[in-house]
Amino acid sequence: MPAPFPSADAVSALADRLAETAVARDKAGGTARKERDQIRESGLLSLSVPRELGGAGAPWTEVLWAVRRISRADSSLGHLFGFHHLMLATGRLFGTPEQWRPLLAQSVKERWFWGNALNPLDLRTTLKEGRLEGSKSFCSGASDSDYLIVSASEPSVSKLAIAAIPTRREGITIHDDWDNLGQRQTDSGSVTFTNVVVDPHELFRTPGPLGSTFASIRPLIAQLVLANVYLGLSEGAVEQARGYTRGQARAWFASGVDSPAKDPYVLLRYGQLHVQLEGARLLTDRAAELLEAAWQLGDSLTVEGRGEVAVAVATAKAATTQAGLELTSRAFDVMGARATTAKAGMDRFWRNLRVHSLHDPVDYKLRDVGDWLLNDRWPTPSFYS
Amino acid sequence: MPAPFPSADAVSALADRLAETAVARDKAGGTARKERDQIRESGLLSLSVPRELGGAGAPWTEVLWAVRRISRADSSLGHLFGFHHLMLATGRLFGTPEQWRPLLAQSVKERWFWGNALNPLDLRTTLKEGRLEGSKSFCSGASDSDYLIVSASEPSVSKLAIAAIPTRREGITIHDDWDNLGQRQTDSGSVTFTNVVVDPHELFRTPGPLGSTFASIRPLIAQLVLANVYLGLSEGAVEQARGYTRGQARAWFASGVDSPAKDPYVLLRYGQLHVQLEGARLLTDRAAELLEAAWQLGDSLTVEGRGEVAVAVATAKAATTQAGLELTSRAFDVMGARATTAKAGMDRFWRNLRVHSLHDPVDYKLRDVGDWLLNDRWPTPSFYS
Amino acid sequence: MPAPFPSADAVSALADRLAETAVARDKAGGTARKERDQIRESGLLSLSVPRELGGAGAPWTEVLWAVRRISRADSSLGHLFGFHHLMLATGRLFGTPEQWRPLLAQSVKERWFWGNALNPLDLRTTLKEGRLEGSKSFCSGASDSDYLIVSASEPSVSKLAIAAIPTRREGITIHDDWDNLGQRQTDSGSVTFTNVVVDPHELFRTPGPLGSTFASIRPLIAQLVLANVYLGLSEGAVEQARGYTRGQARAWFASGVDSPAKDPYVLLRYGQLHVQLEGARLLTDRAAELLEAAWQLGDSLTVEGRGEVAVAVATAKAATTQAGLELTSRAFDVMGARATTAKAGMDRFWRNLRVHSLHDPVDYKLRDVGDWLLNDRWPTPSFYS
Amino acid sequence: MPAPFPSADAVSALADRLAETAVARDKAGGTARKERDQIRESGLLSLSVPRELGGAGAPWTEVLWAVRRISRADSSLGHLFGFHHLMLATGRLFGTPEQWRPLLAQSVKERWFWGNALNPLDLRTTLKEGRLEGSKSFCSGASDSDYLIVSASEPSVSKLAIAAIPTRREGITIHDDWDNLGQRQTDSGSVTFTNVVVDPHELFRTPGPLGSTFASIRPLIAQLVLANVYLGLSEGAVEQARGYTRGQARAWFASGVDSPAKDPYVLLRYGQLHVQLEGARLLTDRAAELLEAAWQLGDSLTVEGRGEVAVAVATAKAATTQAGLELTSRAFDVMGARATTAKAGMDRFWRNLRVHSLHDPVDYKLRDVGDWLLNDRWPTPSFYS
Repeated sequence: MPAPFPSADAVSALADRLAETAVARDKAGGTARKERDQIRESGLLSLSVPRELGGAGAPWTEVLWAVRRISRADSSLGHLFGFHHLMLATGRLFGTPEQWRPLLAQSVKERWFWGNALNPLDLRTTLKEGRLEGSKSFCSGASDSDYLIVSASEPSVSKLAIAAIPTRREGITIHDDWDNLGQRQTDSGSVTFTNVVVDPHELFRTPGPLGSTFASIRPLIAQLVLANVYLGLSEGAVEQARGYTRGQARAWFASGVDSPAKDPYVLLRYGQLHVQLEGARLLTDRAAELLEAAWQLGDSLTVEGRGEVAVAVATAKAATTQAGLELTSRAFDVMGARATTAKAGMDRFWRNLRVHSLHDPVDYKLRDVGDWLLNDRWPTPSFYS
Repeated sequence: MPAPFPSADAVSALADRLAETAVARDKAGGTARKERDQIRESGLLSLSVPRELGGAGAPWTEVLWAVRRISRADSSLGHLFGFHHLMLATGRLFGTPEQWRPLLAQSVKERWFWGNALNPLDLRTTLKEGRLEGSKSFCSGASDSDYLIVSASEPSVSKLAIAAIPTRREGITIHDDWDNLGQRQTDSGSVTFTNVVVDPHELFRTPGPLGSTFASIRPLIAQLVLANVYLGLSEGAVEQARGYTRGQARAWFASGVDSPAKDPYVLLRYGQLHVQLEGARLLTDRAAELLEAAWQLGDSLTVEGRGEVAVAVATAKAATTQAGLELTSRAFDVMGARATTAKAGMDRFWRNLRVHSLHDPVDYKLRDVGDWLLNDRWPTPSFYS
Repeated sequence: MPAPFPSADAVSALADRLAETAVARDKAGGTARKERDQIRESGLLSLSVPRELGGAGAPWTEVLWAVRRISRADSSLGHLFGFHHLMLATGRLFGTPEQWRPLLAQSVKERWFWGNALNPLDLRTTLKEGRLEGSKSFCSGASDSDYLIVSASEPSVSKLAIAAIPTRREGITIHDDWDNLGQRQTDSGSVTFTNVVVDPHELFRTPGPLGSTFASIRPLIAQLVLANVYLGLSEGAVEQARGYTRGQARAWFASGVDSPAKDPYVLLRYGQLHVQLEGARLLTDRAAELLEAAWQLGDSLTVEGRGEVAVAVATAKAATTQAGLELTSRAFDVMGARATTAKAGMDRFWRNLRVHSLHDPVDYKLRDVGDWLLNDRWPTPSFYS
Repeated sequence: MPAPFPSADAVSALADRLAETAVARDKAGGTARKERDQIRESGLLSLSVPRELGGAGAPWTEVLWAVRRISRADSSLGHLFGFHHLMLATGRLFGTPEQWRPLLAQSVKERWFWGNALNPLDLRTTLKEGRLEGSKSFCSGASDSDYLIVSASEPSVSKLAIAAIPTRREGITIHDDWDNLGQRQTDSGSVTFTNVVVDPHELFRTPGPLGSTFASIRPLIAQLVLANVYLGLSEGAVEQARGYTRGQARAWFASGVDSPAKDPYVLLRYGQLHVQLEGARLLTDRAAELLEAAWQLGDSLTVEGRGEVAVAVATAKAATTQAGLELTSRAFDVMGARATTAKAGMDRFWRNLRVHSLHDPVDYKLRDVGDWLLNDRWPTPSFYS
């Protein structure tokens, strides 16, 4: 199924290149500097930037497809790629055109890779008198980044302050302390800020975080990046299982057939994998279409319009999580014991998905969807819904 | 979610009218003569007929949406409505324009309701020297029909003979012997043929059943009618559950809340119902779009094109069956014990879906999908795939 | 698997007799007077009564097995049989030996069938100055009963008043208003009390409902009766499916085998049915053993001891509900479309289980179990846990 | 739940000691020489040896409980411990008392740890003129073992030759080539035999492999060791999750409660974990009781008796596999994102279970169970059933 997107070939070429070393890098963890540079060189970091600012002007459907395609090969870099574009969108959503337009133009020109230091649940970083002080956890993509989106609490302000600042600014220390069971090359470790200067024009205050209906679609983009990472992982697991069953697996001695490709249970299981995967895929594509339509509306986006995207995104997130956890575990059933050699690294799909899907609890996504279905209540905008 | 189809209002009006008596008729079983006449009067029996023959020229996406919408209220009549359009399509697929064009034109003019006497697994009816002799089981919609599609075995011919004949022709006896656990008003009983004359021009021999790639999409239409019936039943179950929870259910004493609409578990369960339902819905809509595209291609349809539709249809059929069985049973969990009064008839969704989904085994649908995914093999055209 | 209980043959003989008319009676609903008399004649209504009072002195493991065995054939009467023994236990648990001993002795002698008018969530019946006034819903087994256990609210008393009174006492009207989707012969309709005299010695006040740790095992008996009814239904569904597949089903045309008994998917599905059923069975048997041990302890039962039974019972209830809903629906998959004839009545297993399992929400059972596992908190005694 | 076994304290002490380093060793892989010596020193390698030969004479119920308890802490060593006892049983099942009695006595005295070189699907090792030649894969526990059970093909003999030989015998090379995704310290690599002498008295020819009904329970012991390893892993996952939720997890911001221990969804999920785990546990215990009874019967064991054990074992294997895969993945849901730090190593439960459960396909276990339930056919004895 070739994706009908202009960037499809470039994305696939990049993904194939990342795939060559993905198993080894997944094992090693750490920062994928060389591969991050390959992403920089691919030009795809400008994919979501408007044409008039030098970007490809791709719609979210295309950007999210790219996240998925890359994640099929390497979900750490797929995540960072998706969050890079989320960071680019942050200016447009939370700031003024005078702020985000030059930033995006420069980002294209200098091939910046953006990182994340925004974790809204970690309130240890404060902004006082133009200085950032404190720490942030789960700062995906901060290492080796060029620019950061940072959040901070301000004394007696309930809303978080959000700023875009160069990663190399004095006082910023990025710690190499991410050592997790999955998404091992997302560099989702901690960052500390010591007396870091922030200029007023670097602060996105108009409308600010969740400051308007349009601004509040940012978490929906974030959630849909995640859903596409899960979907890419699921697609990757099925793809590799298929290659293994066809190329290396052996028929079970009691099956009465000479090839696993004829085993009635193997066929049944593949059928189940497809039904689950395809359902999750369509839900995710549908949410992306709604998101793109909402994005196009800008400030004309209504609460209802935002609500519809939110429900579709929550539905996609729940479906890709549930299908993905099962698919990446069940994929082993159609390969057999010999496919568990460490060399093949087939556990990475489940590990990466399991880790990443804990970003926020799926039960609360389901509750939001249920509250809408039963009570006509749109999900309350927050950094997670 | 209003359906963007020209016939949407007429279909919804018809469905709402059928809904008024659906519970009582589901219980009573038998032939819904009055409601079948309402369908005749609605003009929707010409929905799929080309405009130049007097019909509405609706695409399959629209016809199948109508099947779903009607099934939400009354899945017996939804099935008969869908199979009526399948019977109309049979001439176009298996016969020559000289055969099907006048038949369809007359069907529109006289508001014929077509019935089914084709069950390909029941080989007791034979065609010898222009005469039909024998019985057929599972003849959905034969009672009170105006025209029938009949199949028969011929001596030393492997392919079934398929004919379109008036229901009132001498020698045809339609038995009122359908008394099943579900789909009780589909009149899916038996028909006997005693020395029934069939004229050569009534026989669809060119290309005949499964006689060309295009002809072989007939079973895919049939399967997609079923998937839409299941989906309609699922939608109906959720819709009625929602109405009950909002209007009549009480909070569980241990829940700590004053309304079931605030119960965290009730919200979770509604969320799960939506995720399942929406996934099945998108898979079914996707299959309908592919089917319509294939239909438009006519004899230019390739084996690959047909295969893609077949995989999408099998996927939708498996998904709607599995989701539907769970949804129609789980819907009770969000209503509570008092919703089980016979008067409300809430069991009909599960009963109808359970009965109808046994039309052909879902495991073999999954096997077909698995065989395609693993082995690149398209489903072998048959009366069921 | 023959049950190693002294009453096994008598119970099986009774169940087989009930099975002869079970499908027809399930359809008809109403009071099964003739069959209730057969139960009276079987002598099994004294099964749980101590030997010294003329009963069989059977342990709860045996009584609950009998409930299950009868429910396999007829879950309405299985439920009434189980609740009869629960009513007998009520005196022992809530009253004094002076109260319950003569009652039980007389019950044996006169072959009383006890009914239920205790629904603790329906507070419309009051007790004032020795008179009952008001209504009760969900009074299973009140029709054609000889004695009733009744609950009523008293002015400024938080605890329910519980009494044992003869069904024929003046002022008691039993309504024939139970018409539900399942458990159609449990007569779970309403009862009204008009100025009904209650004598002080008929009131179980010492220790009264949930009045001691021992008294509070009554709801656990009730819940375990339900679990055994669900298990009996599941066993019945699998048993009948098996008979059908062996005797009447046909191989699917695409299966490549000449009998459904050789179809790989049919075998797989039977294997799954067994694994689910057997797990639920062992959990239920285990809970019954713990219950019987607790029963033997009487007033020596500790809070911890009661808690262990409560967790085991909740676990069994959740498992039998979930397995049963799936099993009774899935059993059709191994039979095929022709098994859906109304005559066979195969839907009664799902219908009965679906209705009965709404007695109280399974999610709250799971919450109780989770609260124990995570927080070491025993389920709070109530009429449902 | 203290296990009522004489060895319970010793086993728990050993397991607790292994737990101290389990996460690190799981990561490192390789041979756990030090810990294997701790097992030797514990005396538990004689657990299953009859008292008159110096062992503890423990029944299989106890041995298998020990496998489970050890696997809760360290499933690699749990597996090796279980297979050690399987190797000890091999002599008794396949050989003569003259063969196995002295071997077992010596094994006790010298604290031998037995290893496995029997893989019956790998036929590359041959026995010709008293010499072994060739390779074997999946030789769990061969490294650092004292004695081996070896299988080999003989020219024109259909049955495998099985021998017990010292690991240090000339010509045996144990390769350190096991590097898998899970069960990383089982040393399940390959062994090569170069002109290795085998004495006739070392060959178990009477009755030989599967040579009698009693001999054919060997695979059932093997399967039940696996089921107990899976169960131990599941118990371990739930135990660690519980500790984490209680000690380290935080309430989700949208939950409205101040501790995850009060979150309604967390409680629900714990309830579900328990219901699944407890069902699998009872099925496994039941199978162990039947196995022990069969073991006691020795050559009086009938085909029916063997069949009953086989069905119970297959049921337990299927249940522990399915429950375990879900439990070890779902356990993360009740902990949250921060529990995915590599240090905690919480993924090892799923990885170990996923790898180990591919030993033989669970669908074929279900087929065997289905074939028995539907067709009264006992599982055909083989090295896997």
